[in-house]
Amino acid sequence: MSVTFEQIQAAAQRIAPHIHRTPLLQSTLLNQLTGAELYFKAEHLQKTGAFKARGAHNAVFSLTDEEAARGVVTHSSGNHAAALALAAQRRGIRADIVMPSNASVAKMDAVRGYGGHIHRCEPTLLSRESTAAALQRESERVFIHPFDNDAVIAGQGTVGLEITEQLAAPADVVITPVGGGGLLAGCATAIKAQWPQCQMIGAEPFGSDNATRSFHSGERVTSYQSETVCDGLRAVIGQRNFELIKTQVDDIQLVGDDTILHAMRLVWSRLKQVIEPSAAVALALVLANPTAFRGKKVVVVLTGGNLDLDRLLW
Amino acid sequence: MSVTFEQIQAAAQRIAPHIHRTPLLQSTLLNQLTGAELYFKAEHLQKTGAFKARGAHNAVFSLTDEEAARGVVTHSSGNHAAALALAAQRRGIRADIVMPSNASVAKMDAVRGYGGHIHRCEPTLLSRESTAAALQRESERVFIHPFDNDAVIAGQGTVGLEITEQLAAPADVVITPVGGGGLLAGCATAIKAQWPQCQMIGAEPFGSDNATRSFHSGERVTSYQSETVCDGLRAVIGQRNFELIKTQVDDIQLVGDDTILHAMRLVWSRLKQVIEPSAAVALALVLANPTAFRGKKVVVVLTGGNLDLDRLLW
Repeated sequence: MSVTFEQIQAAAQRIAPHIHRTPLLQSTLLNQLTGAELYFKAEHLQKTGAFKARGAHNAVFSLTDEEAARGVVTHSSGNHAAALALAAQRRGIRADIVMPSNASVAKMDAVRGYGGHIHRCEPTLLSRESTAAALQRESERVFIHPFDNDAVIAGQGTVGLEITEQLAAPADVVITPVGGGGLLAGCATAIKAQWPQCQMIGAEPFGSDNATRSFHSGERVTSYQSETVCDGLRAVIGQRNFELIKTQVDDIQLVGDDTILHAMRLVWSRLKQVIEPSAAVALALVLANPTAFRGKKVVVVLTGGNLDLDRLLW
Repeated sequence: MSVTFEQIQAAAQRIAPHIHRTPLLQSTLLNQLTGAELYFKAEHLQKTGAFKARGAHNAVFSLTDEEAARGVVTHSSGNHAAALALAAQRRGIRADIVMPSNASVAKMDAVRGYGGHIHRCEPTLLSRESTAAALQRESERVFIHPFDNDAVIAGQGTVGLEITEQLAAPADVVITPVGGGGLLAGCATAIKAQWPQCQMIGAEPFGSDNATRSFHSGERVTSYQSETVCDGLRAVIGQRNFELIKTQVDDIQLVGDDTILHAMRLVWSRLKQVIEPSAAVALALVLANPTAFRGKKVVVVLTGGNLDLDRLLW
């Protein structure tokens, strides 16, 4: 196994000075609506507004001084970009972030706000990877992949570890969104180590279904789709991630964008929490399958709260 | 004095089984932006999504059994309506709520969801008051005014009491929005009793400036204006409220709608909290007067999170 429970425990200690221990939120009204006992792990309240801060900090603070001195590089249009910039800033090293030309102004501003150096590229995976690879070669910078990286997976796994510490008795089900699979793989490893009877489920949008197809066929599907409002979940599931998910996750299920937006709206109106569409997929799965979760104690991970309010509101 | 600190302590005990003890939230970014040490009292996370649940529960649970059996009545287009309906439901008594014909569908749905009986009226203060008075006479129902009521003021004062319990050392300043003045009067009474050196400030929109004019002239101004996005603050300051505010509040200051909406947006994007425009007025005052608050420990009350998302988002 590439990432162990002990590595997640070590990650939790390593990143504790830099990240928030986020609360588990509850809502009487959402419990009534779903018939489930729901706990919302509030990673939209995490540093940088997303769980990605955990993996990035664990990766950056796991580097030797010699490695750290060379700086870090990644490609990301989203929350990993800001997370890596902040982690590098906290360690006092340089971060070079390759961002596609269609990345939002808000996301780029966040990276710059944390002192990251942005390099623009074409909005294709090929352009992102080649631009990052060139930067990496240039000064032997350390490449920190957004999800297909053991230290990143272990960092994201601390979400699961915290959940097991925060609830007095095991949950029946834990659900996380799945994109590249870092959060799902890390959480599954932590949850199954502590609560072997707990069901671990991934939730994926119909418009980006490669993790579901990979899980059910047993072969990693690498075709890339992005027909979903969940801009944080458009990645292809990682190799390391898939190996962990295959053995430790009970199921990955699909849900539609309409249900995802409805779930997002419920979180805004009932929990009064600003979450991004990608963060609503786990609750959407509960709403779409009410009988499956009724009467159960279900933890739903709210992954992030970064979205362009200008496009919605003002 | 109409409401004493002891009455607020008694209110806190009385309502404790029914309301949330809301957290004080912080944001590194908003502290950097303002140069102040800011604490946000999260009353948008209160039952019914607003601090009004406190006053309504204190009023309803202060009634004798004989009074309660007659039921309660009020007029409100906003958060007091839902709060009174819930409090009555919890006590098992009837609530009749007069709501103007222009009240939002969401607000009416909330009242119905808590079992309240809605009576429509014209959108004028005269029509509201006469409709409520008729209902009151009809079955000797007990009228619970939204703010000009000692039990309501004592209930809202528990916000201030909790703040003094939650912070280890006194704040330099506490700021609340002011509409009818229930929250400001109650909080001032609690804050000044515990932290006599703390500055107590009310924040009011320019478009509804009667509390500010009353405070600075010493005479209660009863002219009604509603040229503001803050639909929760369009009331005329109450008589009981004004008497408490005159002696216990240090200042009431005005702030513009543009700054209020900017503050609301910062709370959404930085704190990831959904608040309504009326709830952003206290932070807006800090943003509008940066030098006055720099270096100070400032508590800002976020009063509620009920707004019509349809009109903003979908």
